[in-house]
Amino acid sequence: MPGAGTDHTRPALEGGPVVILVEPQLGENIGMAARAMANFGLTELRIVAPRERWLHAKTRAAAAGAEFILDRAAIYPGVREAIADLDFVYATTARERGQGKPVVGPREGGPILRARIEGGQKAGVLFGRERTGLENDDIALADAILTYPVNPAYASLNLAQAVLILGYAWMEAQGAPLPFTQKRRWPAAKRDMVVSFFEYLEDELERRGFFRPEHKRPVMSRNLRNMFHRMDLSEQDVRTLRGMIVRLVEGPRETPQTRKRKGPKQTPKGTRPAPVAAAPDGGGE
Amino acid sequence: MPGAGTDHTRPALEGGPVVILVEPQLGENIGMAARAMANFGLTELRIVAPRERWLHAKTRAAAAGAEFILDRAAIYPGVREAIADLDFVYATTARERGQGKPVVGPREGGPILRARIEGGQKAGVLFGRERTGLENDDIALADAILTYPVNPAYASLNLAQAVLILGYAWMEAQGAPLPFTQKRRWPAAKRDMVVSFFEYLEDELERRGFFRPEHKRPVMSRNLRNMFHRMDLSEQDVRTLRGMIVRLVEGPRETPQTRKRKGPKQTPKGTRPAPVAAAPDGGGE
Repeated sequence: MPGAGTDHTRPALEGGPVVILVEPQLGENIGMAARAMANFGLTELRIVAPRERWLHAKTRAAAAGAEFILDRAAIYPGVREAIADLDFVYATTARERGQGKPVVGPREGGPILRARIEGGQKAGVLFGRERTGLENDDIALADAILTYPVNPAYASLNLAQAVLILGYAWMEAQGAPLPFTQKRRWPAAKRDMVVSFFEYLEDELERRGFFRPEHKRPVMSRNLRNMFHRMDLSEQDVRTLRGMIVRLVEGPRETPQTRKRKGPKQTPKGTRPAPVAAAPDGGGE
Repeated sequence: MPGAGTDHTRPALEGGPVVILVEPQLGENIGMAARAMANFGLTELRIVAPRERWLHAKTRAAAAGAEFILDRAAIYPGVREAIADLDFVYATTARERGQGKPVVGPREGGPILRARIEGGQKAGVLFGRERTGLENDDIALADAILTYPVNPAYASLNLAQAVLILGYAWMEAQGAPLPFTQKRRWPAAKRDMVVSFFEYLEDELERRGFFRPEHKRPVMSRNLRNMFHRMDLSEQDVRTLRGMIVRLVEGPRETPQTRKRKGPKQTPKGTRPAPVAAAPDGGGE
């Protein structure tokens, strides 16, 4: 997605299905298709009968850094020549063509491509012309049809976007990992740490007459605790909350140290921020 | 995909997550994002602080018919205003931002969005600027992060393509059907029809000394039958094969009728083509 963290030290994946663009009319679409391929680890592009001068500045601009795919692209006079060395070929279309071929979506097609390629086959996927798609004779050359679960009221995908969905399905079929996962700078708070915070908080609230009417105390306490439980608190979160309550209870504490402190995030790891030290006084008894 | 069969009699789907583009720089990207939304049934577009004249001819051209989404798009001064009425917000990014938020991919995110929307919540997804993506302060406003299993060596998706993957994941989460499925004009051939064809063929081959050496006959026969079994034959396929063998065996038959016949596909449904009538003579005994 935009602003992505591209790690150029890591090599592009190889070995996915060949992407075959049949008579693409716009260089921009070819460039965008190359970019879409690179995004999901597809590297081999073939182009059937493109316009004479297809590789122009706009094509390269649209590739946005995936020019290595454009420069490696192979040109063929016809679909037959373009797929001559392939063992398995999908044709993409959003229309039933009455050819009785097997039809799969990306979710089935990705794993099928993976299984065939892992089995040593060379596989490819045909994408048709921007306006008219693949001709029936193109589709007749394929083993099966790949189609997408599009909105029936608006089924026409841009060429590069059709290629992108194939790439995404291919990547999912590899079980490719997400670029990162949830990372917590602090361990989750053990339950007794959370409960002792609740006890401290409720004690301060009790002292200030927050729980009224008295008979509502249990439900008020339960609701309050559930709100905090939904925060999925880390140890540092609990220290921060305690410190917050301490300050609300005790009022301003004037030391040069606190003026410097900008908040818990700046607290040097390992050191216990003052709020925690303060907590016992407030939280005791 | 290109050449898609768009059925304008069917209504666009409604009710998916709101797509929020934050400070998009190029009208073309906004238009392409609108098209991507329409492809997968997303209809509500919000734009944060676009350029003053963002809705120009190129924007509309890129929308390629999805202009109804552009014309309905709402403009906001900031992310906070754009998500003010939402219950749940994903921020898209390919970089870890050290905010400790839950992180999901499209496969988990789609069903989560569906569950929340079905539960009556209004959900949205934030997409950042083309070059720099979302700022940390934008991400801080979201409940969780949505990221894609991109090629780590080439992680930068075009804005509209990032929107497209969300749309696809949303559509898959609905269990949306493919636009069509495999359709066979003829029922599959019952096994005894296939076997009787094998017997006819092997009988003709036997008579012509195809099975040599004799002791290889069983394996040759088995291989031959397996080849035909892989054809997943329909009744019409078997009739066509029988007719083909008959002609190979009996040589040309000159009738005006055969000159007119272009092949089995043209055979009017219901009528039995001559090859089948011919089969008994060849296939008998």
